[in-house]
Amino acid sequence: MPVGTQGTVKGLTVDQLRATGSQMILGNTYHLMLRPGADVVAELGGLHRFMGWNGPILTDSGGFQLYSLAQMTRVTESGVVFRSHIDGRLVELSPERAIEVQELLGSDVAMVLDHVLGLPAERAAIADACDRTVRWAERSRAAARRGDQALFGIVQGGLEADLRVRCAEQLLALGFPGYAIGGLSVGESHAEMCRMLEVTTPVLPADRPRYLMGVGRPQDLLESIARGVDLFDCVMPTRNGRNALAFTDEGTLRLRNARNERDPAPLQPGCPCLACQHSRGYLRHLFMAGEMLGPILVSIHNLTYYQRLMQGARQAIERGEFSAFLAGKIAEWKHAEAPAEGDHHSQ
Amino acid sequence: MPVGTQGTVKGLTVDQLRATGSQMILGNTYHLMLRPGADVVAELGGLHRFMGWNGPILTDSGGFQLYSLAQMTRVTESGVVFRSHIDGRLVELSPERAIEVQELLGSDVAMVLDHVLGLPAERAAIADACDRTVRWAERSRAAARRGDQALFGIVQGGLEADLRVRCAEQLLALGFPGYAIGGLSVGESHAEMCRMLEVTTPVLPADRPRYLMGVGRPQDLLESIARGVDLFDCVMPTRNGRNALAFTDEGTLRLRNARNERDPAPLQPGCPCLACQHSRGYLRHLFMAGEMLGPILVSIHNLTYYQRLMQGARQAIERGEFSAFLAGKIAEWKHAEAPAEGDHHSQ
Repeated sequence: MPVGTQGTVKGLTVDQLRATGSQMILGNTYHLMLRPGADVVAELGGLHRFMGWNGPILTDSGGFQLYSLAQMTRVTESGVVFRSHIDGRLVELSPERAIEVQELLGSDVAMVLDHVLGLPAERAAIADACDRTVRWAERSRAAARRGDQALFGIVQGGLEADLRVRCAEQLLALGFPGYAIGGLSVGESHAEMCRMLEVTTPVLPADRPRYLMGVGRPQDLLESIARGVDLFDCVMPTRNGRNALAFTDEGTLRLRNARNERDPAPLQPGCPCLACQHSRGYLRHLFMAGEMLGPILVSIHNLTYYQRLMQGARQAIERGEFSAFLAGKIAEWKHAEAPAEGDHHSQ
Repeated sequence: MPVGTQGTVKGLTVDQLRATGSQMILGNTYHLMLRPGADVVAELGGLHRFMGWNGPILTDSGGFQLYSLAQMTRVTESGVVFRSHIDGRLVELSPERAIEVQELLGSDVAMVLDHVLGLPAERAAIADACDRTVRWAERSRAAARRGDQALFGIVQGGLEADLRVRCAEQLLALGFPGYAIGGLSVGESHAEMCRMLEVTTPVLPADRPRYLMGVGRPQDLLESIARGVDLFDCVMPTRNGRNALAFTDEGTLRLRNARNERDPAPLQPGCPCLACQHSRGYLRHLFMAGEMLGPILVSIHNLTYYQRLMQGARQAIERGEFSAFLAGKIAEWKHAEAPAEGDHHSQ
């Protein structure tokens, strides 16, 4: 899912978004409740109509932004008090309020409010946040009123394998139509992330969507799929696109680099996206000249790259050849010079 | 012609640009020669291929930017020396160099280098700039090598009617496939501009394009058409669009205004553009949230508005009803509250 933080995937019209192959997008409850306000979105017909997207929308609960963006958050059993990053006013978000906001937004999939911790963190703090996440999940489910909105639980547990398993089992006992794995991509290593997936996904039912939140690089996605993940959201294709970093089969490409100045080649030969109708030289010029069209085109390219990668993964799974597909892609990226270095820093 | 200053009409892909009804666009020689450089554009296939626009392109000669943008310009008979607004380096632009650059860019219509003065200006200075413009036009024509590029002369003369006529007659004696009227929209009143058109266009042949450079508001365009003008370029639709000002039949609309917050209406009922598939409330939100999509969508709307207005004018001319069309539009705009005030300030 491309990330449409504030009711738009940055720089793209909805038809351009659809043309990237995107099927489902994510909207951010935290941002939309602050601006323009959930009541405004509801009055203007709900998030689908507001932004003109007729495909499925998942809204997160705000838990991750409370951890990453909001100032001076205070977490109590009843909920979270935070200062808006826009105007500094104090706002409260409880599990019930997060559901109320998402019901006003009218997303197809809503997420329970969870308690996200940065890593590394002490086991006692992780256990505490984990138990609170389960209690909040129960309250969220009790608060949900819309029959046309699926509510997903979120597994927390930091890097503590047994806490991940316990959290997953407790959510399973409550019963949700889908499950997310949260609190990753917050400071841990790639190996640690993979280990957490290996202990968590086997507990989650294979006939329900398993959603890894906020991840990640192309190789992260494929290795997570290998460990049972079905659904992702990440700002990497769009945020990197705005910063002139393009994803290609030969690794990432920094468009501002002088060697692109007179390069007539497209970013990725054979890519059907709008950006690849232009030369690397033109795309570089747009960034050097500070033109909006640079971020727009490379965002389109990167989303197209990610969607084609996911399409390749789905087709490989259907053919029963995912392991070979994964190995092939990993070899490709290893062959390219330091393909992932750039991405990681800009995450 | 929408203005594509740096090889892009700001924020729009070429297919979005085409969908606004735009047929021909303008590129800026001054900007492109500084960045990325005419040789880079030529090496990447010329301006059409560089930016992916397969319709006609007119390039200006740089004369207006030397007046409006460049620092410390020194005008001599041989040409202009200016400091780049990008990096401060000294660059020389002569009539011959302006042609060479435009031939490298490969536009369909090139413009002669002219000597633009701000208004008001003393008659002696205007006469001097005017004579130089004619001498430079002759040198430009002698320097032109491409058979597939039309070269237009530019009539200068400030607000001195007799100098305008003399300049036009001198250019006519040289003979160009099209003529522009330059040095307007630089500080004079609307009535003064109209008067200059009234003395100039009758001298210019009716079977050649008459092009009014850098103008203007919707009413300026219609009143110029009434005085014989065929072709325009202006940044107003796009620059105002980026600043949240939308053109409608009811006058201009400032999207940031709080009264748009919950307004479900489109900018202009019946407008076929992408922006008008959204509510004013959504468009306002995009600007308040600092989202790129706001400038993109309102630029698309404003270009569509201008192109539909010009289409209406062409159809009225073909039906022999232009006077009634003009009177109807003027009455519409007069009825609306202060329709033009906003535009003028942001010009």
